Amino acid sequence: MAPRATARAVTGCPSRRCFTAGMPLRAAQKPFYEGEPGGPVLKTKIPGPQSTKHIKELSEVFETRSLSLLADYTQSFGNYIADTDGNQLLDVYAQIASIPIGYNNPALAKAAATPEMIRALINRPALGNFPSHDWAEILKTGILKVAPKGLPHVFTALAGSDANELAYKAAFMHRRQQERGGYDVDFTAQELESVMNNQSPGSSQLSILSFKTSFHGRLFGSLSTTRSKPIHKLDIPAFDWPQATFPQLRYPLEQHAAENAKAEQASLDEVEHLIKTWHLPPAALIVEPIQSEGGDNHASPSFFRALRALTKKHNVLMIVDEVQTGVGATGKFWAHEHWGLEEDNAPDMVTFSKKAQTAGYYYRHASLQPNRPYRQFNTWMGDPARALLFRAIVDEVARLDLVQNTVRVGGYLYEQLESLAGRYPDLFQNLRGKGQGTFIAFDSPKRDEFLARAKVEGINIGGSGTTAVRLRPMLILREMHVDVLINALDKVARAL
Amino acid sequence: MAPRATARAVTGCPSRRCFTAGMPLRAAQKPFYEGEPGGPVLKTKIPGPQSTKHIKELSEVFETRSLSLLADYTQSFGNYIADTDGNQLLDVYAQIASIPIGYNNPALAKAAATPEMIRALINRPALGNFPSHDWAEILKTGILKVAPKGLPHVFTALAGSDANELAYKAAFMHRRQQERGGYDVDFTAQELESVMNNQSPGSSQLSILSFKTSFHGRLFGSLSTTRSKPIHKLDIPAFDWPQATFPQLRYPLEQHAAENAKAEQASLDEVEHLIKTWHLPPAALIVEPIQSEGGDNHASPSFFRALRALTKKHNVLMIVDEVQTGVGATGKFWAHEHWGLEEDNAPDMVTFSKKAQTAGYYYRHASLQPNRPYRQFNTWMGDPARALLFRAIVDEVARLDLVQNTVRVGGYLYEQLESLAGRYPDLFQNLRGKGQGTFIAFDSPKRDEFLARAKVEGINIGGSGTTAVRLRPMLILREMHVDVLINALDKVARAL
Repeated sequence: MAPRATARAVTGCPSRRCFTAGMPLRAAQKPFYEGEPGGPVLKTKIPGPQSTKHIKELSEVFETRSLSLLADYTQSFGNYIADTDGNQLLDVYAQIASIPIGYNNPALAKAAATPEMIRALINRPALGNFPSHDWAEILKTGILKVAPKGLPHVFTALAGSDANELAYKAAFMHRRQQERGGYDVDFTAQELESVMNNQSPGSSQLSILSFKTSFHGRLFGSLSTTRSKPIHKLDIPAFDWPQATFPQLRYPLEQHAAENAKAEQASLDEVEHLIKTWHLPPAALIVEPIQSEGGDNHASPSFFRALRALTKKHNVLMIVDEVQTGVGATGKFWAHEHWGLEEDNAPDMVTFSKKAQTAGYYYRHASLQPNRPYRQFNTWMGDPARALLFRAIVDEVARLDLVQNTVRVGGYLYEQLESLAGRYPDLFQNLRGKGQGTFIAFDSPKRDEFLARAKVEGINIGGSGTTAVRLRPMLILREMHVDVLINALDKVARAL
Repeated sequence: MAPRATARAVTGCPSRRCFTAGMPLRAAQKPFYEGEPGGPVLKTKIPGPQSTKHIKELSEVFETRSLSLLADYTQSFGNYIADTDGNQLLDVYAQIASIPIGYNNPALAKAAATPEMIRALINRPALGNFPSHDWAEILKTGILKVAPKGLPHVFTALAGSDANELAYKAAFMHRRQQERGGYDVDFTAQELESVMNNQSPGSSQLSILSFKTSFHGRLFGSLSTTRSKPIHKLDIPAFDWPQATFPQLRYPLEQHAAENAKAEQASLDEVEHLIKTWHLPPAALIVEPIQSEGGDNHASPSFFRALRALTKKHNVLMIVDEVQTGVGATGKFWAHEHWGLEEDNAPDMVTFSKKAQTAGYYYRHASLQPNRPYRQFNTWMGDPARALLFRAIVDEVARLDLVQNTVRVGGYLYEQLESLAGRYPDLFQNLRGKGQGTFIAFDSPKRDEFLARAKVEGINIGGSGTTAVRLRPMLILREMHVDVLINALDKVARAL
């Protein structure tokens, strides 16, 4: 039923139509895994007739107003996502930055078919009460194998939002234990009574300090720290917690060095002021290494080092939210490695999810564990099946040296985009993410039109903030895919 | 290395030592699935040497202070959970009521090994943006096939806590849309601005009304409604939301009819008073059909019908939390079916998780969807892999008629416990759950000792509230298992 007449295949990068920007094309390079098309395949407009039928059916039972593409995962491979009309798009959005090593990855398929995985799926334990005898081994060979430097412990969770909230809970309990006079000091009768009425002193009058334009999730505690867009927050009750301005850097960085340093210092001053004066004292500060939903806002390593020093000075725990930045995309396994903090100066907690397929928070000290069992607890406390999948991801990332791959390919991608920005300065503004692997973004005034046109050119790409186009390719992006992407974006730019 | 000298196998129920209570034993009946031992197998004390070794190892990297049993899921089958020392316990706690049809269930193992499951595991979609072409089909043949009467829609989630919080968010948005004057009325500039500061009018000044001794989860919004124990809530900031007293029924019910009716009416009066007077008006009320963590507190169907009428009268949405009661254990697929509500009088939302292995909330009307996309949204919005598993569970429950099984076996179990209570009235107080399938509990003043001794007799059993022993067997419990359980509890009682 697909209209063959409109069929069109963009296989690789036909040399005449490519934007080469002075760099040799590398289309001959092979993908890391087999099964990908040589380039985007566009057989119908999107959504095509089959997709339209399926979307109509799905709309009757599920939320589809935010639907971007009705996918066919039986036909999606590597960097390419397919729909049921036979279209295959280069996917540099990757399920909101959550697919690490490609669709239908053979190593993950193998891990998913093991007896160990099947057992994990069908015998889901309450990990706090009845962990499996091999849970320590699964943690050590997976989640903990890639623990950030200085953070040897982990508490597992299901997704980014609850990972952040569990970290907040750990921070509140830690701070109150300090205030109470130590780990072994018992709760007062007044605390035990008032907490059942949601009143202080049992319910603490403390806060989490976050940054404007940050995103930390959408549950009630995490949403109180999220400051991305009104649509995420409207009508939901929120805690009266403080927010500091995140530095708003100007680009190119080298032309605005003094101005940017001033913006970073102003932000630090505001953080310190809020810590000292906010009526609900912050037990912790949470920050993304790169504000990812809020528009890809960066700050310098020295800013983050100063932030670490400030939080230490004021006994405020520092939580780094690596839900979107973690697992290799920035050219380090964890983005905060770019800051160059010494091990004894590591953040107190680092949260993760998305590309990890599982979630949780790493933490530094046993003292961040609450003083009693069942204080940090829930039925599942994570998911061994997803932990096994992360282990297989970690193994592939190491085997194929994919973090180094993002360094190299990210550098190439950045150069290509810089050249495009030179040709179309209005459409590619504030290019950012240099030296941050493939974690690259730019602003485009006609952003939503830009994204829609990219899809017509066979590229699935996402936005963030109000005007940013964000690139969130998988770790298996190669130079050949960059060429396809740049070629398509060139066409988009010419058409706009 | 296991000390063979202490080995002891309790196979089935040796007639001389059984408490028969006038009922014929049915030990000859076969389990629904193969692989179970004939009765508990106790080879070492628990934890034995192997378990002790593993627990020590796990303690270095994970929370083990709440550990009850270091399980070996390779050796656990059906109703029996094993450890690494070769012990096999009859499990009537079932991972805090979350294993529906037994360990290493062959039907689930089959579902877990399908190409469909492998694809779902390794290509995890952002369901709001890139759902799979077969997601509607997966929903219709699984989660929606068992939708409660009158609630044809679903929003999927990952666990009970976030299912409840998503339901709360839907309630807040719904109520504010009403107050704003309808679905199509836009947000004001003041709302859009204030919400970014976590202030009203953008952040609503509304509440969720819950009951004392309730449990609805441990994230910040859900924990504000949870009123089970101080240890769950201490030090965590909470919203100033209202709580009503849950009826505290006295047992046996038939001897306290007037008194209990009065308690229920007092509770209803308090609910109405709070709705009318609380300074943050409730957008919704949430209630468990049986308060499960709070001590297995029941109320009558007429109480719940009156509660439904009250919430309707005052335009407060009614959310029924079936996270623990749902999926068959009470002798209905959903426990609120016991209330006899007509379809057009169904609760507004019903939340689920645990035995479903996935989670979410069912809802009545499309008007409970927010008026804009991306208001109720997150990256994963559920998990197709777990939805496939629930579908396989639903199929097995239907094929083996397991809800009727819990009716019959629950009746038998209740009778046996009633007889035990007749013999040991001090140890089996306030027996409750008659006619509620196997969802049965009793109070025991030496509860924690009772639970520890049960383990020595080969029974894994849990508590709730301060003095309750709660039975949460799987749906595949048969009379033969009841005999094993009763025999063991008889020994426990004699020893105490």
